[in-house]
Amino acid sequence: MEELHSWNKCINKLELGIFPTPLYRMTNAEGFLNYKPIYIKRDDITGLGPGGNKTRSLEYILGDAVRQDSNVIIASGPLQSNLCTLAACACSKLKLNCILVHSGEKPDKFEGNLLLNKILDVDAHYIGEVSENERTKYVDELFVKLEKEGKRPYIIMNGGSTGYGALGYVNAIYEIFKQCKELGFRINEIFAPGGNGGVAAGLIYGNAILGFPFKINIISVEYDKDTLSNHIRNIIKEVEEITQIPFNYKLEESCSIIDDYSGKGWGRNTIESEQLVLDFPKMEGIFIENVYNSKALVGMFDMIRKSRVNGEVCFIHTGGFGSLFSQW
Amino acid sequence: MEELHSWNKCINKLELGIFPTPLYRMTNAEGFLNYKPIYIKRDDITGLGPGGNKTRSLEYILGDAVRQDSNVIIASGPLQSNLCTLAACACSKLKLNCILVHSGEKPDKFEGNLLLNKILDVDAHYIGEVSENERTKYVDELFVKLEKEGKRPYIIMNGGSTGYGALGYVNAIYEIFKQCKELGFRINEIFAPGGNGGVAAGLIYGNAILGFPFKINIISVEYDKDTLSNHIRNIIKEVEEITQIPFNYKLEESCSIIDDYSGKGWGRNTIESEQLVLDFPKMEGIFIENVYNSKALVGMFDMIRKSRVNGEVCFIHTGGFGSLFSQW
Ligand SMILES: Cc1ncc(COP(=O)(O)O)c(C=O)c1O
Ligand SMILES: Cc1ncc(COP(=O)(O)O)c(C=O)c1O
Repeated sequence: MEELHSWNKCINKLELGIFPTPLYRMTNAEGFLNYKPIYIKRDDITGLGPGGNKTRSLEYILGDAVRQDSNVIIASGPLQSNLCTLAACACSKLKLNCILVHSGEKPDKFEGNLLLNKILDVDAHYIGEVSENERTKYVDELFVKLEKEGKRPYIIMNGGSTGYGALGYVNAIYEIFKQCKELGFRINEIFAPGGNGGVAAGLIYGNAILGFPFKINIISVEYDKDTLSNHIRNIIKEVEEITQIPFNYKLEESCSIIDDYSGKGWGRNTIESEQLVLDFPKMEGIFIENVYNSKALVGMFDMIRKSRVNGEVCFIHTGGFGSLFSQW
Repeated sequence: MEELHSWNKCINKLELGIFPTPLYRMTNAEGFLNYKPIYIKRDDITGLGPGGNKTRSLEYILGDAVRQDSNVIIASGPLQSNLCTLAACACSKLKLNCILVHSGEKPDKFEGNLLLNKILDVDAHYIGEVSENERTKYVDELFVKLEKEGKRPYIIMNGGSTGYGALGYVNAIYEIFKQCKELGFRINEIFAPGGNGGVAAGLIYGNAILGFPFKINIISVEYDKDTLSNHIRNIIKEVEEITQIPFNYKLEESCSIIDDYSGKGWGRNTIESEQLVLDFPKMEGIFIENVYNSKALVGMFDMIRKSRVNGEVCFIHTGGFGSLFSQW
């Protein structure tokens, strides 16, 4: 605990959201699955823009940008990228310029997160349906161009799933640990979605620092187990470099990375995830989108049904509510 | 204070949202207006569905319905009605049947709140572009029909702006009062939007019970001052009947009802409100929709600029985020 505080003191963290986010029991889901207790951690309501996990990540990422005295933030992603929209919200609040680079065509009608970006009047570059590599190349060139113009650009790499971004979820697990104590809850297993692995890396690293109070389960929504594990290892290395506190564990011994529920990859529903987007709101009055939380919840529900969990479980809802409005 | 608790004990209140909602200072808005402190009460993030004021109202309205052993809830409103969507979310969570009656045509594409209703798979009746009176008639006939079928229907009247609905905002002002004490804040003036007057009635009545700690300002988004005042008086009468605690004050002496910012009425932006929907998110990273909070915030901002307020001010953000996605 002390250790956690000690690194946090040396790092520039901004305040962008409202924390702690709520943590409570989902009694209807418990009834549905005939299992209890099942908790939910509401990182979908962080109070910044449409909410979601990127709020926590940006507190550290933009903290780093501000420390470096940057004045133009470049974020990139697909059209409905939650990172892009949250970055735009955060930059507005911080009075930093923000440029979004989207791999996609400029649409005729602005839906979901794109509508929010439009309201924020953010500078958006639509570079067509290009690969992630090509998008990265575009971003790098933009960076050089902006520097030549005398600006001080900062690139948010990898959809925010970086060492700094992961610190947000080191903090989150610390928050859950503290909340459990305060509220008298016990939680054994934590579930969260894994995309590029930033949330995962933060949770796993933070859990290790805390002495493994929780069992962390990451449900991949995109990559196979080995690929996601490698992403997570790389991000943990970045975290170690920032905090100077080593992570002396084998990844496979400090968490479960599960790739049974990703189907045909990013943004493509499985039959079960498509159904749960409809069923979960009916249970709890809480919406989930199709890309991340739908698959992660399917995984958690299935593992509960198959008795692959022990004791108290907790789902971290990472948000993405804005994107839901474009997914129909 | 004691009195407030005493009535609350006799009334069936359900738990639908996550309270207290956050209360904090909007430092960017303070800088913009060169005035401080300006607080925001985040009733837009209540944790139920897309959030918003109707969460509080439904805790009491559906509490009444459950007490009466009703099993079909009928809510009605325009297509993008926040009440309808929140009622659908709440009923799902409570496992009550819900029927929505919309004055409007069934759209080809489901946007904003309608998309959320569709996800919830709620039974929706689209009765065309009819007047409020005709919609009420339809609802009354539906009620009779359902009773004949042996069901126990319950009508949510007047968009939830009823005596029971207002109790949610009696509670809200009590919550603000308590939060101020706990956080060491002082608040002098409170601003909130006024539609049918349910939020207003609750705030005004609750403030009176508490001994007038606040000055309540209601910015009408639709009706002229006299019409809205009459609505509020009627709802306060309903509250008195429920609580059996009289409100012994003249309305005009216990609050300010302001109709300078409603423009051409419900759902029609003024030039200023249209602009603030764009500008406010850039300040605080918080979105507002076009119908309610845009006009109410325009009013508060203008009154601050014209030095028509004293001391600490607080804006109650009543949500409506789901509807924003249909307003473009
Ligand atoms: C809503 C939501 N959940 C989960 C994730 C996954 O995060 P990570 O890439 O850190 O694994 C993302 C990333 O974009 C997201 O937007
Ligand atoms: C977002 C929002 N704000 C404010 C109001 C106004 O509430 P009232 O009708 O109680 O004045 C409503 C009512 O529909 C609403 O949906």
